Amino acid sequence: MSGNTFGTIFRLTTYGESHGPALGGVVDGCPPGVPVSEEILQRDLDRRRPGAGGLTGTARKEPDAVRLLSGVFEGETTGTPIGFVIENTDQRSRDYEAAKTLLRPGHADGTYLAKYGRRDYRGGGRASARETAARVAGGAVAGALLARAGIRVVAYTVELGGIPALPVDVAGAADRPFCAPDPDVIPLWEARAREAMATGDSLGGIVEVVATGVPAGLGEPVFDKLDARLAYALMGVGAVKGVEIGNGFAAARLLGSQNNDPIVHPPVSNNAGGILGGIASGQPVVARAAVKPIPSIAVPQRTMDIDGEPAEIVVGGRHDRSAIPRVVPVLRAMVLLVLADLWLAQKTVA
Amino acid sequence: MSGNTFGTIFRLTTYGESHGPALGGVVDGCPPGVPVSEEILQRDLDRRRPGAGGLTGTARKEPDAVRLLSGVFEGETTGTPIGFVIENTDQRSRDYEAAKTLLRPGHADGTYLAKYGRRDYRGGGRASARETAARVAGGAVAGALLARAGIRVVAYTVELGGIPALPVDVAGAADRPFCAPDPDVIPLWEARAREAMATGDSLGGIVEVVATGVPAGLGEPVFDKLDARLAYALMGVGAVKGVEIGNGFAAARLLGSQNNDPIVHPPVSNNAGGILGGIASGQPVVARAAVKPIPSIAVPQRTMDIDGEPAEIVVGGRHDRSAIPRVVPVLRAMVLLVLADLWLAQKTVA
Amino acid sequence: MSGNTFGTIFRLTTYGESHGPALGGVVDGCPPGVPVSEEILQRDLDRRRPGAGGLTGTARKEPDAVRLLSGVFEGETTGTPIGFVIENTDQRSRDYEAAKTLLRPGHADGTYLAKYGRRDYRGGGRASARETAARVAGGAVAGALLARAGIRVVAYTVELGGIPALPVDVAGAADRPFCAPDPDVIPLWEARAREAMATGDSLGGIVEVVATGVPAGLGEPVFDKLDARLAYALMGVGAVKGVEIGNGFAAARLLGSQNNDPIVHPPVSNNAGGILGGIASGQPVVARAAVKPIPSIAVPQRTMDIDGEPAEIVVGGRHDRSAIPRVVPVLRAMVLLVLADLWLAQKTVA
Amino acid sequence: MSGNTFGTIFRLTTYGESHGPALGGVVDGCPPGVPVSEEILQRDLDRRRPGAGGLTGTARKEPDAVRLLSGVFEGETTGTPIGFVIENTDQRSRDYEAAKTLLRPGHADGTYLAKYGRRDYRGGGRASARETAARVAGGAVAGALLARAGIRVVAYTVELGGIPALPVDVAGAADRPFCAPDPDVIPLWEARAREAMATGDSLGGIVEVVATGVPAGLGEPVFDKLDARLAYALMGVGAVKGVEIGNGFAAARLLGSQNNDPIVHPPVSNNAGGILGGIASGQPVVARAAVKPIPSIAVPQRTMDIDGEPAEIVVGGRHDRSAIPRVVPVLRAMVLLVLADLWLAQKTVA
Repeated sequence: MSGNTFGTIFRLTTYGESHGPALGGVVDGCPPGVPVSEEILQRDLDRRRPGAGGLTGTARKEPDAVRLLSGVFEGETTGTPIGFVIENTDQRSRDYEAAKTLLRPGHADGTYLAKYGRRDYRGGGRASARETAARVAGGAVAGALLARAGIRVVAYTVELGGIPALPVDVAGAADRPFCAPDPDVIPLWEARAREAMATGDSLGGIVEVVATGVPAGLGEPVFDKLDARLAYALMGVGAVKGVEIGNGFAAARLLGSQNNDPIVHPPVSNNAGGILGGIASGQPVVARAAVKPIPSIAVPQRTMDIDGEPAEIVVGGRHDRSAIPRVVPVLRAMVLLVLADLWLAQKTVA
Repeated sequence: MSGNTFGTIFRLTTYGESHGPALGGVVDGCPPGVPVSEEILQRDLDRRRPGAGGLTGTARKEPDAVRLLSGVFEGETTGTPIGFVIENTDQRSRDYEAAKTLLRPGHADGTYLAKYGRRDYRGGGRASARETAARVAGGAVAGALLARAGIRVVAYTVELGGIPALPVDVAGAADRPFCAPDPDVIPLWEARAREAMATGDSLGGIVEVVATGVPAGLGEPVFDKLDARLAYALMGVGAVKGVEIGNGFAAARLLGSQNNDPIVHPPVSNNAGGILGGIASGQPVVARAAVKPIPSIAVPQRTMDIDGEPAEIVVGGRHDRSAIPRVVPVLRAMVLLVLADLWLAQKTVA
Repeated sequence: MSGNTFGTIFRLTTYGESHGPALGGVVDGCPPGVPVSEEILQRDLDRRRPGAGGLTGTARKEPDAVRLLSGVFEGETTGTPIGFVIENTDQRSRDYEAAKTLLRPGHADGTYLAKYGRRDYRGGGRASARETAARVAGGAVAGALLARAGIRVVAYTVELGGIPALPVDVAGAADRPFCAPDPDVIPLWEARAREAMATGDSLGGIVEVVATGVPAGLGEPVFDKLDARLAYALMGVGAVKGVEIGNGFAAARLLGSQNNDPIVHPPVSNNAGGILGGIASGQPVVARAAVKPIPSIAVPQRTMDIDGEPAEIVVGGRHDRSAIPRVVPVLRAMVLLVLADLWLAQKTVA
Repeated sequence: MSGNTFGTIFRLTTYGESHGPALGGVVDGCPPGVPVSEEILQRDLDRRRPGAGGLTGTARKEPDAVRLLSGVFEGETTGTPIGFVIENTDQRSRDYEAAKTLLRPGHADGTYLAKYGRRDYRGGGRASARETAARVAGGAVAGALLARAGIRVVAYTVELGGIPALPVDVAGAADRPFCAPDPDVIPLWEARAREAMATGDSLGGIVEVVATGVPAGLGEPVFDKLDARLAYALMGVGAVKGVEIGNGFAAARLLGSQNNDPIVHPPVSNNAGGILGGIASGQPVVARAAVKPIPSIAVPQRTMDIDGEPAEIVVGGRHDRSAIPRVVPVLRAMVLLVLADLWLAQKTVA
């Protein structure tokens, strides 16, 4: 319930604050014999590091070095829980006095205070995007499991600051600035990003995640539909405000005869995004997440302090100008976690 | 895991196929002392009955009469599980021969077969929208619990067949055709619906659900964010293909300075939809669900039979022409179930 | 949490009070293709009926007729939840005035009141042993699943009122008075029972449950050990006050060299009761439950009323004189439920 | 399911092998404001260290130094997950060749192999009693939470090698050899232990755990009864083969009139062990666990290697001669974890 465990059979439990000693997690339920190593986790972690793509400027430069603590023996999982930890090396004494008393608009400062009556105000504490490092590490284990089953997941940016991109080369997106699926969009996005940075403002965007090789039949009925689990997974990432599957919101404006996919081999359309009745159809599973502009902006905003007194705030520091591209591997990790869980669940049915 | 239980503390477990003997559910975890009766459940169930709004034409006319089996004594809950059942009175012998062998496009026929290797093909079986009756009954219990805490949920249609409506009078929406929040949109939607029906086609739309009185602090961190749980709940309803919170997908195109809500009393905007960092801010919680056009259409479609042979299908019968308005009370019920669960969870924190 | 759902993958959720309209349950997670019918459930239910063995005298004579509501199609499970209901036919107006105000020693009257602040006082409400009917029905489904895997569970009485019995013929126990594993012990137990009945008193005993065909490897590590799950399952039956595995409490008095089972084929001992490190060894799994004497006795006892005033109570009526033999099929059902859940769980490991 | 998470609201997830880099855990669901520190965890951990009581002789001398990684800020919990880690400092290269191929009788070597098809054979891997260190650390957090509510748990040895002890001074037991509740029994137990050690053999015993201050009403109905959860918790500790509550197995031999506790103030007996109908009565909660003799003995035993070939084994090394007293704080920790979970659960009812 308390929200730090994801999944039922393949489970990830995470812990850690932005400026505490460390963050990490435990993957439980991974079958034995899956090749897992610190290198495999690190590779995915490096993709969400500061500076991994364009449009970044955060001062934090930790390498986010992951250390495996258990569950792997002679290079393969043993079936026992896989503990891992990422030390917070950048815990230098900053001036957190403002953070202690002022609530940042668009952040969880006030809501955490309302929930818990207290909070670790240093760098956002548990509500920091830094928390997602543990998700990416857990997702890497899920990815190693799914790779054995031929299931692969790619994620890329399909829109930034209102400028769309075409999925020209999704395989190469992870290595491009902004996780762009089309090299040609990069200069346009760079211009848009510079524009926003010039005024201290921030940008949002849309990320698409596609899973291929998902066998027909994956997903559970009624409440645990594959799309329901994906929506839960993606919306649980801090900056996400919307999730859609296949045609998504556009489907609401189509006729049934336009939106239905004919059942033919080979398929001629995938409006359903690879899911019918909550269960995978065998076509690629396609989800999109709407990412809001990062709330940390160098523009003066009206707010209040923790005593309710009106105040003005300018969130300084060299923050990212968009959750994109760092959120892209996080969203990919979440889809991997969902699929690993449901893939194991399906074994109990067949 | 197997998908028929919703919630952790306030839990709804459901069962039942479209044409089996009965469907029903068990609500577990409801505190004692909540006024619950068959009348309260029936009132909500009646709102999802055929003919409850415009744009319907299903032949099924069961009253969906609910019977309470346990957990209520002298008009109030006792703290023990609340069992309820809705008999399927319309089990007359139909000709299901076509349903037995032909896969309907846009339906779960093929995916259930892939998952389970068999299926109750009569009327969609467990994948039938009829399953949602149990959700509405469970949601009514959640509603009775939340009403004591001053939390109320309304749901209404904000778009049908591409034609939007303004939230002129949301309180009256439940009693209007299409659950329209504006009387003036009704003739436009009726025209649009007639147009679709004339060609045997179907319509989609967008439903908005708003919860008021949600106390700041509700929601769990990280994976179980309030918005994540809402997305899971709403996307788990059959026809839903997208979910958004507050500004939703529109937020992806705004600047941070446009999307952030200033923290002032009284609030001047609610772009966040009442949720920051996954936790309720105290403002109304606003979610929207994209509902696809119903896949049962009287238009010839290409499909295949269960042996993979190509075929053509015309889904006959007097089916609904849109999931709207019958899905509206279902989406409202799902939000009630989420809030009841998280409201009880918050008691373990404070 | 609220205690009415058992299991993680193979799950049973139950509801119902002693004198409410009905009791029942939902089995979720049963794979498709398992032969299940009302007859299969009824057969196990009949074994826990009043008068099914010796030593009984309860006035309640319901047939406990079970009705399947969903999840079974053409004689086999479909993979969707299996709802079932047992109507309470014996709801005639009794005089519950005493039950309303007086707390019965050894019963849950006072503790339910402390927990919920109210209670359905008619016949024990949810705390009545009648609740176990739903467990037996759920266990019958588990049994049908396990039978396909060659796993069988027998249960029998190994001690009654302090008089032990030898496991001479455990296969026939279910059809004998007291579920006696030895015909020769029956007259001794009958004499002991008559003796207790003559003074209005009641007896306890010990029940042994043995599962054969459990494959080596079943069970989960650390917290969810097979023996931990069995202890949880058996101790959760109302009258049970102790659970042991293999040598159990006797092991505490042995030397390691006496208690260790040599690892040889064929095995020469089973002191471990078929479980090592919480995981099945392949030998028969052996558990025993200590059943307390039924607290409803016709002997005057000191108690208090719900206002805390001292009182004397004689629990009248024609109650059972021991939970044995009616508890025997319930304990067997609980073991079946544990094994079904862990058997499916093991599929996610291999 | 995979067995490494305990609890529903107050949850402990653990990881770690005997000879991997580290072991540790995550406590999730602990409310904010509970005083927690490394010192508090360390104090309980020190009680299960080698040499903490009599009858030990293990060569392993790690200090089991615990490090807090998250969830605590300025000396109190914040409501976010509490990560902790205990490094394995004694990872020196031993000769594990025998362990690699020979199955030790009474150990989980063979069953882990059957379950996972592989195992970390170094020192027992995950099946090592060393795993329980994480339970003790988690239990210490539970203890800090419960202390605020006036709930306290003591544990002590009531029998060793067949020699019983009287609960003369349970408060001082934790500081005595063997966790003895009576100073006078210590020489008797020492003699018994020397006797067993002289032949390379090992001893079992019985541990009693008593919780005081448990408010009436704690515990959940039906499957999650307080006694069921205690049985699950205690039987899940490696060496435990039996669990009983109150009179336990002795109750099976009493008459109802002997076993029922009269309901009077002040109470005159506690045969029920503080639990009626699975719910706390307000009297002390009393549980006992039967601990088998440690299977590692220096006596030659028949076994087989992993290829099924017969062999003889003498488990050398300076192992403990009994799980007692090191298991005592572990059993206490498990009861603390159960009570913390149910104590929070009760907040959702009232």
